[in-house]
Amino acid sequence: MASNNHPIRFGHAEFDIILERGAGKGPVYQQIAGALRERIVSGEMPAGARLPPERRLAAQLGVNRSTVVTAYAELASEGLIDGRVGDGTVVTYRQEARAGGGRPIPWHQLFAEGSGDLSPWIREILRTALRQDVIPFAASEPSPDLFPMEELEALTRSVFRDLGGDALRYAPTEGIQPLRELIAERLRRRGADVTAANVIVTAGAQQALDLLARCFLEPGAEVAVESPTYVGAIQAFRSRSARLVGLPLDGDGLRVEALDRVLGRRAVKFVFAIPNFSNPTGHVLSEERRQRLLDLTRRYQVPVIEDNVYGDTWIDRPPPPSLIERAGAGHVIHVGSLSKALFAGLRIGWVVAPAPVIERLALNKQIADLFSGGLAQWIALRIFDSGLYDRHVDTVRPIYRERRDLLAAALERESSGAIIPNRPAGASFLWCSLADGISSRDLLSQASLQGVTFVPGDVFSVEGEEQCRLRVGFSLLNKKGIEEGARRLAAALETLRQRRRVESPVLPPPLV
Amino acid sequence: MASNNHPIRFGHAEFDIILERGAGKGPVYQQIAGALRERIVSGEMPAGARLPPERRLAAQLGVNRSTVVTAYAELASEGLIDGRVGDGTVVTYRQEARAGGGRPIPWHQLFAEGSGDLSPWIREILRTALRQDVIPFAASEPSPDLFPMEELEALTRSVFRDLGGDALRYAPTEGIQPLRELIAERLRRRGADVTAANVIVTAGAQQALDLLARCFLEPGAEVAVESPTYVGAIQAFRSRSARLVGLPLDGDGLRVEALDRVLGRRAVKFVFAIPNFSNPTGHVLSEERRQRLLDLTRRYQVPVIEDNVYGDTWIDRPPPPSLIERAGAGHVIHVGSLSKALFAGLRIGWVVAPAPVIERLALNKQIADLFSGGLAQWIALRIFDSGLYDRHVDTVRPIYRERRDLLAAALERESSGAIIPNRPAGASFLWCSLADGISSRDLLSQASLQGVTFVPGDVFSVEGEEQCRLRVGFSLLNKKGIEEGARRLAAALETLRQRRRVESPVLPPPLV
Repeated sequence: MASNNHPIRFGHAEFDIILERGAGKGPVYQQIAGALRERIVSGEMPAGARLPPERRLAAQLGVNRSTVVTAYAELASEGLIDGRVGDGTVVTYRQEARAGGGRPIPWHQLFAEGSGDLSPWIREILRTALRQDVIPFAASEPSPDLFPMEELEALTRSVFRDLGGDALRYAPTEGIQPLRELIAERLRRRGADVTAANVIVTAGAQQALDLLARCFLEPGAEVAVESPTYVGAIQAFRSRSARLVGLPLDGDGLRVEALDRVLGRRAVKFVFAIPNFSNPTGHVLSEERRQRLLDLTRRYQVPVIEDNVYGDTWIDRPPPPSLIERAGAGHVIHVGSLSKALFAGLRIGWVVAPAPVIERLALNKQIADLFSGGLAQWIALRIFDSGLYDRHVDTVRPIYRERRDLLAAALERESSGAIIPNRPAGASFLWCSLADGISSRDLLSQASLQGVTFVPGDVFSVEGEEQCRLRVGFSLLNKKGIEEGARRLAAALETLRQRRRVESPVLPPPLV
Repeated sequence: MASNNHPIRFGHAEFDIILERGAGKGPVYQQIAGALRERIVSGEMPAGARLPPERRLAAQLGVNRSTVVTAYAELASEGLIDGRVGDGTVVTYRQEARAGGGRPIPWHQLFAEGSGDLSPWIREILRTALRQDVIPFAASEPSPDLFPMEELEALTRSVFRDLGGDALRYAPTEGIQPLRELIAERLRRRGADVTAANVIVTAGAQQALDLLARCFLEPGAEVAVESPTYVGAIQAFRSRSARLVGLPLDGDGLRVEALDRVLGRRAVKFVFAIPNFSNPTGHVLSEERRQRLLDLTRRYQVPVIEDNVYGDTWIDRPPPPSLIERAGAGHVIHVGSLSKALFAGLRIGWVVAPAPVIERLALNKQIADLFSGGLAQWIALRIFDSGLYDRHVDTVRPIYRERRDLLAAALERESSGAIIPNRPAGASFLWCSLADGISSRDLLSQASLQGVTFVPGDVFSVEGEEQCRLRVGFSLLNKKGIEEGARRLAAALETLRQRRRVESPVLPPPLV
């Protein structure tokens, strides 16, 4: 008699289906039907829960597809489940609760497949950044002690005075017209051939990426992205069940020749790139590669999404003109935001793209949240109009330069060279390597105990690589915080290395 | 020779495929392959575009599925397309543009299927509400002349003073803790057994509905909704390709016995209801039906989403306790918002639900927009904490009562009874019937020419019914606007009736 234990995933729960072969065990299809029937009738798999596709369950159980088809047919004939072409098979049986009963709802069985397959990393970063007891090297956010609060308050007063209640009404889905015009005008001054009709205001750049995913991606669609890249982009694209094709970077940014090979072979829907201060590496795409990237994608007629949220955070020198400044909105989709160069709390981002793309984004934003807050948009408009934005980014530049240099020096010094940071020309983090093949996940476990966090490198990677790297943010902390954080991080690394020495001691050479 | 012209839909474009049968015309599969090849090679169907499923194309063309399979196989063997199990067939061929060329990108071929099948109604409502030349009866928004701007400005100043830059930092995805606690506390005072862990702050109630759709709905999932109901809910659920099962309403709200029949037969994922001032009918679910709705859904173990955005907009008398106040968050998911009772411009809504639902919502909000703006949340917190919210809803009540009564009277008077309004006990619109079977879409075309808009009834209906009804908003306008709007609407109706008389004159009885 062969017996086999098969953990089968339904939604987010796992059930075992035990198949036994041999005399007296009954046909396999009946065993499968029996196991499922039990879960359905008990309420473990409630009405509306989805059964795995026949093909997948058959593969998991190591049986013919027809065996599963027969099992499902039996359950359907009993009125327990219902299958529809194209929509899969769902549980239809409802056990009515006993009078006065009311079992708790098995929520995880009702959630849509894939809706929980999301990395919680961003939330974790947001959460720990606010903890008092932890030094938040995980954050990549501008420093609140540098926010221009007095000017901001004055601008806010002026919005209240000039607009009154109109600032708090429903606003157009595409954004308030003067802000759309201003965003277009700023890009036009830098050479981009765009107008307000090419602009939609979004709730930060994250919503821009999510709406682009909604507009372009179907399950199985392919997208070419730099790897490593922004974790929120990976998640937004994966939440539509897209397949990500990772493209390598070097010190000059995206390696365009790798993209050439990919575009020649694969039907990618778009290319996603961060030419200005890649997250997490801080690399800047060289001038010459920008032109090649544009030429190549134009030749292949593939849209490029350019994430420019760090564009104005340069420290040493301005980056070369962005893709949209060189090419207009022909096949370039440009994403910008206030969040990295100023602050994130107004939730103002934008997309600049050809009009049909803006139109499709607006249709989908209408469903996502109707519109972005008018008060925040009017304040953002005046932040630009008054010159505050441009003054501010110039004011904070030397401060962030100092923090970057302090952090790089402190990490090298405190770790005696075991943490090797780069020195990006902008953005708000260092991309560091760990010597001796130590895993950054192991380091993070230890570091959390010692009161410091960072983001492990694999979070940014399409294939889970970059395991000996970490992103360490410098923007949020002053000198004292930076140095204390570097000490704690180095101490955590030392703890880890000592433990490793104990567990696998280096033996002395054998005596001869 | 038979010739047949078949318009075939690819994404959002339509192509004709002309099949000719008879000697010398070649096999049908080659004609299909030829027609597709032409579109692919010309760039009309670019790389990444999705071909229709074989089964669907075969049905549209009236050929065997195997004929389409053969045609696709031929194109695949030429390297033009690629099919993957479960993911459909996509174009893989890329025509490289001629040097210096660069055709415009055929965007509509790249958009995801379904991403454009969204009603633009909400955007239209938002847009026309801001036009000076049109009387916006389409709007359902509080009146900006009633906003408590002085107190709001003082609260905003106090947020700047007490929080400084912290008000503009990244905030937790679930919302700032004190606002979550306050929302839970307000419901607890009314008897709901909930804590801050049961609350997530969202960008208005629309985002709440969209996130719930992301968490629960897969293509083909069934949802039971009142019909008519809020158009933004219909759109959010349909954008996940859910099937909506409409439930009838009468003067006491949702007819619960109809739900009983539906739950007995169909595996709906959840029930969506607006117990307090249904949009668009303004009906209030009776006390007795609330209890039956709770008992029924508890018995069947089906979650109920309760949209309570109009709960505090009562005019004549407070509605009975909401579902969550009676039942806690066991199987009730409660959606609230500042937008209807105060103003929409802060984009503050919330969901109160069992902790596993909040957790899943937060995972998905993280992808959608990371978090809601902190400044807006701190202001919202103080709007409640200071008592401003409760004072405000009491202050505006008699004003909206007057506007409701003015509009109802003006519509009846100006139209001589041809527009028949109801008189809801809350919310911000009247649900009106047109006499003589006149279509509200026809009326809208005429009304727009005469400078007044409203929302035609079918927009709210699951099956496109309610064609002789319209939703007419009273909240945004003062006496003068209300009366002028009613005159324009009645005039538009009269124009329509006269035209009808000319086109199909009532003949005198024949002489005998």
